[in-house]
Amino acid sequence: MNFQSKFLTRSRSLKSLLCVGLDPDYCKLPEMIKRSPEPLVHFCREIIDATAPYAVAYKPNIAFFEVFGSSGIRQFEKVIGHLKSNYPEIPIVADIKRGDLDNTARQYARYYFGDLQVDSLTLSPYMGLDSLRPFLEYQDHLVFWLCLTSNPDSAQFQKKRFSETGRTLYEEVAYVANSISPLNLGFVVGATNPQELETLRKQNPDRIFLIPGFGAQGAKLEDLLPVCGTNSLINSSRGIHFASSGLDFASRAGLEAEKIHKSMQTYFSRS
Amino acid sequence: MNFQSKFLTRSRSLKSLLCVGLDPDYCKLPEMIKRSPEPLVHFCREIIDATAPYAVAYKPNIAFFEVFGSSGIRQFEKVIGHLKSNYPEIPIVADIKRGDLDNTARQYARYYFGDLQVDSLTLSPYMGLDSLRPFLEYQDHLVFWLCLTSNPDSAQFQKKRFSETGRTLYEEVAYVANSISPLNLGFVVGATNPQELETLRKQNPDRIFLIPGFGAQGAKLEDLLPVCGTNSLINSSRGIHFASSGLDFASRAGLEAEKIHKSMQTYFSRS
Repeated sequence: MNFQSKFLTRSRSLKSLLCVGLDPDYCKLPEMIKRSPEPLVHFCREIIDATAPYAVAYKPNIAFFEVFGSSGIRQFEKVIGHLKSNYPEIPIVADIKRGDLDNTARQYARYYFGDLQVDSLTLSPYMGLDSLRPFLEYQDHLVFWLCLTSNPDSAQFQKKRFSETGRTLYEEVAYVANSISPLNLGFVVGATNPQELETLRKQNPDRIFLIPGFGAQGAKLEDLLPVCGTNSLINSSRGIHFASSGLDFASRAGLEAEKIHKSMQTYFSRS
Repeated sequence: MNFQSKFLTRSRSLKSLLCVGLDPDYCKLPEMIKRSPEPLVHFCREIIDATAPYAVAYKPNIAFFEVFGSSGIRQFEKVIGHLKSNYPEIPIVADIKRGDLDNTARQYARYYFGDLQVDSLTLSPYMGLDSLRPFLEYQDHLVFWLCLTSNPDSAQFQKKRFSETGRTLYEEVAYVANSISPLNLGFVVGATNPQELETLRKQNPDRIFLIPGFGAQGAKLEDLLPVCGTNSLINSSRGIHFASSGLDFASRAGLEAEKIHKSMQTYFSRS
């Protein structure tokens, strides 16, 4: 099943848009987990098992694994394996933000889509379309191109306007993406930019959006839901999996996910 | 010794700017190497040992290792280990092109600078300064920010001009970098853009430039040397390490590196 179908099936069945981010920052792991031989696998497995009933998708960020080099990437592979074996109905977005020229991009595409078989991933657009094309060849998978990110300095380049086209850089990214128009290309649009999100959503009703920045980064659900449409994933990472640093970290993560899930369900049942 | 000193010492001693790129694309490896238990380590070690007399720096691109997941990253770590044990005087540029928000960027910085201790790496600027700052804290190491890349689609975003500042995106990247002005920040400027390279070089005489796109990607040495200054690294990857696909791949790589080295030496002895 391709990403779009898998995502829509899951999203409609749960009446939710919740993407559970997995950022297993080692320093913040509960002490008992830190002593585990594979702390990142241990932590993520518990978080996944506790939140799976409420997760439309999972988004592990590779940086928190890559910090441990080959041993970290082995743990990343095990987390992906755990998801694919136990929750094949839940799509995986690998948050990697890579971006390199064609021949090199092809290597990344082969690993993440060809071998690991994650459903989707994030890419940076700075180098232009030829850094994206090798990924789009995997038509059952989807790429989220960074468009307008949620971090404080995102405006530095992304919100500046080009004189030639009248578009800002992030609008230009969306425009270039639409010029090639594959269906397996979505956008990352930070929740910390509600006005821009609303406009982009109206201009791109058929694109799937990945929306980080909700929760720990500041944006509120009640402001987001009316503007993000039904083909979006709203991500929360730390707000869920670091809800408690004690022994109850997994159950508390489950409760947090359930809370967001119910808010979303209520909203979509009404609207 | 910090990156700048290590690079200048090596560059002055060799009278050269040659950076030997390591892109061990598995499909293109000699057949005998493909059968090795660790083909990427085997290939890179032979290329390194044959080219070390002529290398001012080495630039392994992580994508060609990451394609094999944890096993590939383990091989990457061994290649870095081989360089650091045997050629501690030759600086290493890890070509990773990462770019993520602060907390996440910190993970990458910790692995590459803190643990692996590579001298330098490449980053993508799309997300702005807060994706860069955690790396700059490692003051003995240097970051090359992607400025104007060498790929055909680089103009798509990078050469468009902002109305507010009158600068193109790549000029804006350089401007923002200069606004914070740390000495351990250099630029990636593709050799395929000779005019822009010349202008950027004049505007940024003290920044170290990493210049890809020479050789296999089309740019010529005689056009590059007069404009790139003495604080640049001119990279050649495939043109050197894939000079032959036969049993003589390492010796041919050595000969190719020597040829470029001698051209550079001749040029700098004259000028």
